[in-house]
Amino acid sequence: MISRDELGEAQAYAAEQLAACGIVLTDAERHAIEVADFGLSRLREAGLMLLVYVNTDRYCAKELVLYPGQACPEHRHPPFDGTPGKEETFRCRCGLVTLSVGGRELVLRPGEQFTIPPDTLHFFQAGPDGAVVSEFSSTSRDDLDVFTDPNVQRATVVG
Amino acid sequence: MISRDELGEAQAYAAEQLAACGIVLTDAERHAIEVADFGLSRLREAGLMLLVYVNTDRYCAKELVLYPGQACPEHRHPPFDGTPGKEETFRCRCGLVTLSVGGRELVLRPGEQFTIPPDTLHFFQAGPDGAVVSEFSSTSRDDLDVFTDPNVQRATVVG
Repeated sequence: MISRDELGEAQAYAAEQLAACGIVLTDAERHAIEVADFGLSRLREAGLMLLVYVNTDRYCAKELVLYPGQACPEHRHPPFDGTPGKEETFRCRCGLVTLSVGGRELVLRPGEQFTIPPDTLHFFQAGPDGAVVSEFSSTSRDDLDVFTDPNVQRATVVG
Repeated sequence: MISRDELGEAQAYAAEQLAACGIVLTDAERHAIEVADFGLSRLREAGLMLLVYVNTDRYCAKELVLYPGQACPEHRHPPFDGTPGKEETFRCRCGLVTLSVGGRELVLRPGEQFTIPPDTLHFFQAGPDGAVVSEFSSTSRDDLDVFTDPNVQRATVVG
């Protein structure tokens, strides 16, 4: 659970970080920034801000924004609807992100990218200045993500 | 056909425009910027610079860069391999682009986007300051594009 204040602060932080990266948003997009605490109620340590540009039945594109040191918990994107599951390319835009994929650790700096195969366990954490990461992928179905930590709930409760 | 000088100038222009938009490239990417004159030998009027970030058998992401007033000739992305053809989302990052889709005309400014259905005729032209456009799409097969102008050749000859 996150508070209304945490939601507003996180949306404002994400919009600022995107602007600092040169990424222009519409007003509607600024208000549509999703804040995920993964049900862990420690947003600054475990969480993620997301802006979905497009998600069709064929492809998806998002921006991911992380607070300094914030991590997205380990998960995988399982097969669904006869597809092998979501395949995704992370491209670091600003800051630094450490990506752990199938036991391998990589550091992505601005201009560096990595493609995560479907159904493969991964997690990622921003460096000390936070991070902005563009995600290009096949269709996104966040509700199907399988997390290693059984306490994770993908939907964020604001209260 | 374009000259070696035109190729070098166009790559340098594209890299500069991307940098001005806050988009960081690796050295390898700067050298991999594709310059397309569509076989029309009037690059500044008809053409496009492209940087492909990723193109898997499921999705694709590119940056498109245009000179001031430069236009990409009318074309469509036909069905292939049992798919309905490439579906693509254009998101304007810098400058301004006028997009013509199925007879409808739209102006996209930074932060604005539009999704072009598969197999639908479209063309686009940059405004007076050029344009940088992010393209998110299903798999890209440029070699299959069908152009309205029979003089177009998708592969660029440098000589």
